Amino acid sequence: MSKAQQPFAVGIDIGGTNTDLGLVTAEGVCVRRQHLATRDFSEANAYADALANAVRELLAAQKITLSDIAGIGIGAPNGNFYTGSIDYAPNLQFKGRVMLKELMEARLATTVTLTNDANAAAWGEKVYGGAKGMNDFILITLGTGVGSGIVVNGQMVYGHDGFAGELGHATLRPNGRRCSCGRRGCLEEYASARGIVQTYRELRRRHGLETPADITCKDLTALADSGDALAQRTWEQTAKHLALALSNAVTFSSPEAIFLMGGPVRAGHWLLDPLRIHFEKCLLSIFQGKTQILRSQLADNDAAILGAAALATY
Amino acid sequence: MSKAQQPFAVGIDIGGTNTDLGLVTAEGVCVRRQHLATRDFSEANAYADALANAVRELLAAQKITLSDIAGIGIGAPNGNFYTGSIDYAPNLQFKGRVMLKELMEARLATTVTLTNDANAAAWGEKVYGGAKGMNDFILITLGTGVGSGIVVNGQMVYGHDGFAGELGHATLRPNGRRCSCGRRGCLEEYASARGIVQTYRELRRRHGLETPADITCKDLTALADSGDALAQRTWEQTAKHLALALSNAVTFSSPEAIFLMGGPVRAGHWLLDPLRIHFEKCLLSIFQGKTQILRSQLADNDAAILGAAALATY
Repeated sequence: MSKAQQPFAVGIDIGGTNTDLGLVTAEGVCVRRQHLATRDFSEANAYADALANAVRELLAAQKITLSDIAGIGIGAPNGNFYTGSIDYAPNLQFKGRVMLKELMEARLATTVTLTNDANAAAWGEKVYGGAKGMNDFILITLGTGVGSGIVVNGQMVYGHDGFAGELGHATLRPNGRRCSCGRRGCLEEYASARGIVQTYRELRRRHGLETPADITCKDLTALADSGDALAQRTWEQTAKHLALALSNAVTFSSPEAIFLMGGPVRAGHWLLDPLRIHFEKCLLSIFQGKTQILRSQLADNDAAILGAAALATY
Repeated sequence: MSKAQQPFAVGIDIGGTNTDLGLVTAEGVCVRRQHLATRDFSEANAYADALANAVRELLAAQKITLSDIAGIGIGAPNGNFYTGSIDYAPNLQFKGRVMLKELMEARLATTVTLTNDANAAAWGEKVYGGAKGMNDFILITLGTGVGSGIVVNGQMVYGHDGFAGELGHATLRPNGRRCSCGRRGCLEEYASARGIVQTYRELRRRHGLETPADITCKDLTALADSGDALAQRTWEQTAKHLALALSNAVTFSSPEAIFLMGGPVRAGHWLLDPLRIHFEKCLLSIFQGKTQILRSQLADNDAAILGAAALATY
């Protein structure tokens, strides 16, 4: 059977705390899940052993074998498609370069495809979500950081080294906020959950108001709903920052659509309405009215697993 | 014979003032040239008639026929690869959309391929120049404006509408200089010949000095050579602006190399030395030390024709 004919694929989403595995049907439904505590492992071989076991358990629970799956896809921070390795991921305990594709293929008789989480999410959007049939689009993940996956001519953009698609670290404001990457003014510092909360804090400080230490990005949607003008203004400013960044991305690849995924997108109209307005204003005239801003059509809970599973059919 | 086996291709570079035609060998040597005054024509059909005649004369002078050429490639401002049209080019007298591919194919029995001038130049770099064998690179043209052509996975990036690759209009400095496109802070306002001269004027003004009205970007190289500290500083500042823009482009496609072409590049070490230094400083750490900044290896005089001719073998 060719890959595409296999009834299932396994998607693995590796995070700093947890590793989530899912068994995904060809239609993009995650029918079974398995979890592993990434944090319990400081050594890559032991982690690969446990991960291979988790895959075996996942398949056994469905009463299927490796021959029933198209392959295993892995989305991981700093995952490199070309080498199949996770390279110096700051949020993982494994140090240096972990050849995870190789380690997994040595343990399981199937093809393993690995890339970073945002690239995986973009491919998931193309295979199972709103980007079906699109050849040129960008997916932006808003969360702890800001990630991106870019598709051009129907193919993922990996670049010469496998690390393309880091729009979260495009410089939006020269001399702007200090970024965790050591540089200044990156989009991530304005559009990540943390950056959005910082915008709120700064707005309140300007009005002589303190901000509770435990406020989260999620709270800002409820606050905006309840009429907090500065929370509303925070979403508007976030939309302006994001609009500029996305309009710059359009000058590069002129995509049919830009998809947004992740926690801050749950702000809904507070973010998306001003974003669409400012995005059109920021665009060079030849690009106006052509690129849609859309929410990802993958369910937030399953998006990472679906993205990873989609890689198995790449 | 397949396209690649034809001994020649015709490259046509359309500018606001002149149209240059060249007969190019498979090795990328322009063996014959022909010219036409674009400005003499305000009507597209008459222009297409004259252009078709110029192609016939070019071939006749070499004693060859249309069957000896792989095809005709055209680089034109606002040229659209998908539609084969020139769309609302501000520097041309033809108004609206000119279906030039169609007009030319109706007059000459060969395939005509059309795109914008910077895309053509990038493809010329890949077929005949320094990007042979590269699958991921960017070419930036510095001149009256700033253009770009982007190659990803060995293919030109055209985007969903054919207009991708407008890095000259990525916003570099929000609230920066007013751009001819009506927006603010575009790279073009800092790295075009005009923008570079403006930087020099601003530096002199800050020192209480007037600047001769007729000073050109070319003069700034001679002035830097002769020890003019503000001309030297102008190149350094231009390098800083360009470094930031190029480092942002790297977050998108992580190219193996970025090629520079056009008049300002003749400043040589005044521009390139600080550019390479600042570019490395601007890059996100995972990209450092990986992307070369190179001068185009197409001779300036022939670059546009070679680029256009390369399209014929696309």
